[in-house]
Amino acid sequence: MVLCVRARAKYELESASYLWLMVEPAMQGAAHRVAQASVVTNPTVASEYRQDLYGNTVRLFVLPQGQFTFEFNAQVQVEPNTGVPPGAFEHSPQELPTDASIYTLPSRYCQSDLLARMAIDEFGGLPPGGGRVRAIAAWVRQHVEYRYGTTDAMTSAYDTATERIGVCRDFAHLVIAFYRGLGIPARYISGYALGLEPPDFHGYAQVYLGCAWHNLDATCADERPALIPIAEGRDAADVAVATLWCRSNMVEQSVEVWCNT
Amino acid sequence: MVLCVRARAKYELESASYLWLMVEPAMQGAAHRVAQASVVTNPTVASEYRQDLYGNTVRLFVLPQGQFTFEFNAQVQVEPNTGVPPGAFEHSPQELPTDASIYTLPSRYCQSDLLARMAIDEFGGLPPGGGRVRAIAAWVRQHVEYRYGTTDAMTSAYDTATERIGVCRDFAHLVIAFYRGLGIPARYISGYALGLEPPDFHGYAQVYLGCAWHNLDATCADERPALIPIAEGRDAADVAVATLWCRSNMVEQSVEVWCNT
Amino acid sequence: MVLCVRARAKYELESASYLWLMVEPAMQGAAHRVAQASVVTNPTVASEYRQDLYGNTVRLFVLPQGQFTFEFNAQVQVEPNTGVPPGAFEHSPQELPTDASIYTLPSRYCQSDLLARMAIDEFGGLPPGGGRVRAIAAWVRQHVEYRYGTTDAMTSAYDTATERIGVCRDFAHLVIAFYRGLGIPARYISGYALGLEPPDFHGYAQVYLGCAWHNLDATCADERPALIPIAEGRDAADVAVATLWCRSNMVEQSVEVWCNT
Amino acid sequence: MVLCVRARAKYELESASYLWLMVEPAMQGAAHRVAQASVVTNPTVASEYRQDLYGNTVRLFVLPQGQFTFEFNAQVQVEPNTGVPPGAFEHSPQELPTDASIYTLPSRYCQSDLLARMAIDEFGGLPPGGGRVRAIAAWVRQHVEYRYGTTDAMTSAYDTATERIGVCRDFAHLVIAFYRGLGIPARYISGYALGLEPPDFHGYAQVYLGCAWHNLDATCADERPALIPIAEGRDAADVAVATLWCRSNMVEQSVEVWCNT
Repeated sequence: MVLCVRARAKYELESASYLWLMVEPAMQGAAHRVAQASVVTNPTVASEYRQDLYGNTVRLFVLPQGQFTFEFNAQVQVEPNTGVPPGAFEHSPQELPTDASIYTLPSRYCQSDLLARMAIDEFGGLPPGGGRVRAIAAWVRQHVEYRYGTTDAMTSAYDTATERIGVCRDFAHLVIAFYRGLGIPARYISGYALGLEPPDFHGYAQVYLGCAWHNLDATCADERPALIPIAEGRDAADVAVATLWCRSNMVEQSVEVWCNT
Repeated sequence: MVLCVRARAKYELESASYLWLMVEPAMQGAAHRVAQASVVTNPTVASEYRQDLYGNTVRLFVLPQGQFTFEFNAQVQVEPNTGVPPGAFEHSPQELPTDASIYTLPSRYCQSDLLARMAIDEFGGLPPGGGRVRAIAAWVRQHVEYRYGTTDAMTSAYDTATERIGVCRDFAHLVIAFYRGLGIPARYISGYALGLEPPDFHGYAQVYLGCAWHNLDATCADERPALIPIAEGRDAADVAVATLWCRSNMVEQSVEVWCNT
Repeated sequence: MVLCVRARAKYELESASYLWLMVEPAMQGAAHRVAQASVVTNPTVASEYRQDLYGNTVRLFVLPQGQFTFEFNAQVQVEPNTGVPPGAFEHSPQELPTDASIYTLPSRYCQSDLLARMAIDEFGGLPPGGGRVRAIAAWVRQHVEYRYGTTDAMTSAYDTATERIGVCRDFAHLVIAFYRGLGIPARYISGYALGLEPPDFHGYAQVYLGCAWHNLDATCADERPALIPIAEGRDAADVAVATLWCRSNMVEQSVEVWCNT
Repeated sequence: MVLCVRARAKYELESASYLWLMVEPAMQGAAHRVAQASVVTNPTVASEYRQDLYGNTVRLFVLPQGQFTFEFNAQVQVEPNTGVPPGAFEHSPQELPTDASIYTLPSRYCQSDLLARMAIDEFGGLPPGGGRVRAIAAWVRQHVEYRYGTTDAMTSAYDTATERIGVCRDFAHLVIAFYRGLGIPARYISGYALGLEPPDFHGYAQVYLGCAWHNLDATCADERPALIPIAEGRDAADVAVATLWCRSNMVEQSVEVWCNT
């Protein structure tokens, strides 16, 4: 399937500043390939790339004071999203590769140390494996209400476990914290999804089972038909779409994803 | 039934200070009558009484620097504890008397505003009344592990909802927060109980159903055979056994409750 | 000085429900007297009054499903607000009257137990009394930014101590928590104020010094010229303007206060 | 200077389990070189090594149920600890290398997003550079009391900012959160220190200034004479001395560091 992606934003900067932008998927991922892509900015400014510790590509800008807009366009070839196989097995700690081990530890928004007892209490009795992982996502979908505008950048899994309301980011943080609480590596993915209502940047989880990473989007019962990852990290703190080093105001932002057929 | 109660403590005060002590049950309560009681202190110091806003009696001391010990002894006639009648009805907000209304509001350790959605999600579907109130206590007993020494004076219902471990005080705070989240008046009682293991001061809840307050001790499945209230309040912050206004050290403390037969 | 007060709100109720309304000042207070007052509602519904534990008057309604509006109008004779006398003395715990003692304890939004060490660290070295109380308010005004729309009904003094941004309610909660952390009785007042920009319901503190309660509005360096208290309590949880027992939506709300000269 | 290090611990495992152990410094670091080292365990069990995402070496064990003890001994050649040069400059975000950038982001125990306003309020007016970094450590040392046994594994910088008491780990988390709140890369180091009283594993910070990482130990006014790093990470969650995957009990633990002269 070929998807078209367009992401736009306009910022008002109170002073000259730096911008880190993470809206561009890797050219080649496990389940996607970028056919063509472009970033246009106004004013036109030079940019350079850098890789972060997780292997994500960040685009760096030096911006003047005033308005700044960017528009990212891409055509991406995507394989259908398959979700977590119910039979995929959980690993013992000893078997985990290095880049999965790190994702068993607590992080800013996924305080798995605080949530481990709840995870064990609620899900410790289920048979390990993909079935349990899916059951946990179903639990979150059933017990947490999805409602736009109810949470903010400070809301964490610890809050959502009790407050039971939030958006995609909160759903992802909560399942990730539960998985880590059970020793299952889980990471946060920022990306694009087909069929979001309203359209926006998306956040979902990936879990490491059966020697592979699998997509887990706790916000929908069926699998999203297609997911395109932009960046991965321990939680949303690692994969912010835009980081600015000055007082600024986001005037507008829009994301569109559609099927090119 | 006639119970004997003995409570002792020794403090080391770094300077002269005030002490508020709340270890003495009211002479006459809804389900108890104090036959005889005495407080002995060393050094011997004068004290006076005062009533707080909730009608509890507080004993006030002015203490010199150094060691201070008190010993409280009492014989108390107690009616058997009957627990919450499964058929007792919940009141509409309009029917609540003033001194019950206040106990529907959030407090320091019972943040019912934060826990209301969880309460509604978990228990909103149960038929209102005493049966629901008991089911909530059973849920807490099943999902929270009782373990001495795991929590401290800063632990609140919001923590226990997720961390799922604690002592009597934490069990009481959590059920109180759930009840208030459903609009049911619930208050915290500090008191003495027969059969605690290890013996200690006790904390439990009371709920207002069917025009009366009922004991609810979430730490045991069967009813405690006998409970003697010392003081009531919105949560443990209101009914501290001892409050000192100086740096001090509690050297020892013991509580004994036995049946005088 | 004679002030005119008008408060209006419109709610959309998803079902029939109860409403507790606290917008009416006591007819006679320490520094005000209500000359005339009226509450008009649409639809017209009967109401009754009740006193809460703190002596506040609450108006109770039973409302049908659908839209509900109220408009409160009053003329109030007010004495000029004088603020905290720098020379007013702090009391020892033993001297405090019952209805002041309760206001030394922690509450839902004023976790003075958690903030006591910070209070002592920052202000413990200042000479006790009204001067210290004013210095603490000045510290909060200097270190916390006043900005509309940055906090919500869950924000507490514990958050504001670190996050350093908020509105009148947050300013009041933080000074109250600091005062209690130093053993100074402090309570939360909801009320009306002349000269708020934008006009709104107001929240401020009162402290007990020199055998009297004094107004302390941490949001302005000079004293507010006039303050009219509606209700007092341990924090904002006790004095909500309107409490509804159903899913509802506040469609609009406005407050006007002007000088009748 | 040559230091001898001995670290011992005994665990009681309720079942067979995995152990990740991080007590061994890298053979060669920026300011140390390990002359000889050994790990002895009882029972004797095989182990293997793995590198984590930050480049730390973790030793992995599969342990039987029952008691397990390890003893680590090493002789380490250490350069004197020099601390942060007052004149070292802060970098712009654009200049930061990848492995420093990650350390500007919030993490589990260093919620720099929540603490940024406090950091800017308290320290934003100081001239950037090593002098400011040292002033922040001095502020923490002055405002936070060092006291053993007051905090636990759940205490974070957000707590310490207000509660103002803790141990080395808490001091490190708080300065790290402040540095990140100002855009200065800061990471957490677990290690050994000469002269700790009582002796224990140590935790301190490193900051990235003037193209280099510098030690910053907020628990002492003078520089520690010698610091030996074991592992680095975003906070203490990344560098736990021992991680066990079963219910277990630490029976004893001791650390000794002495000068071999």
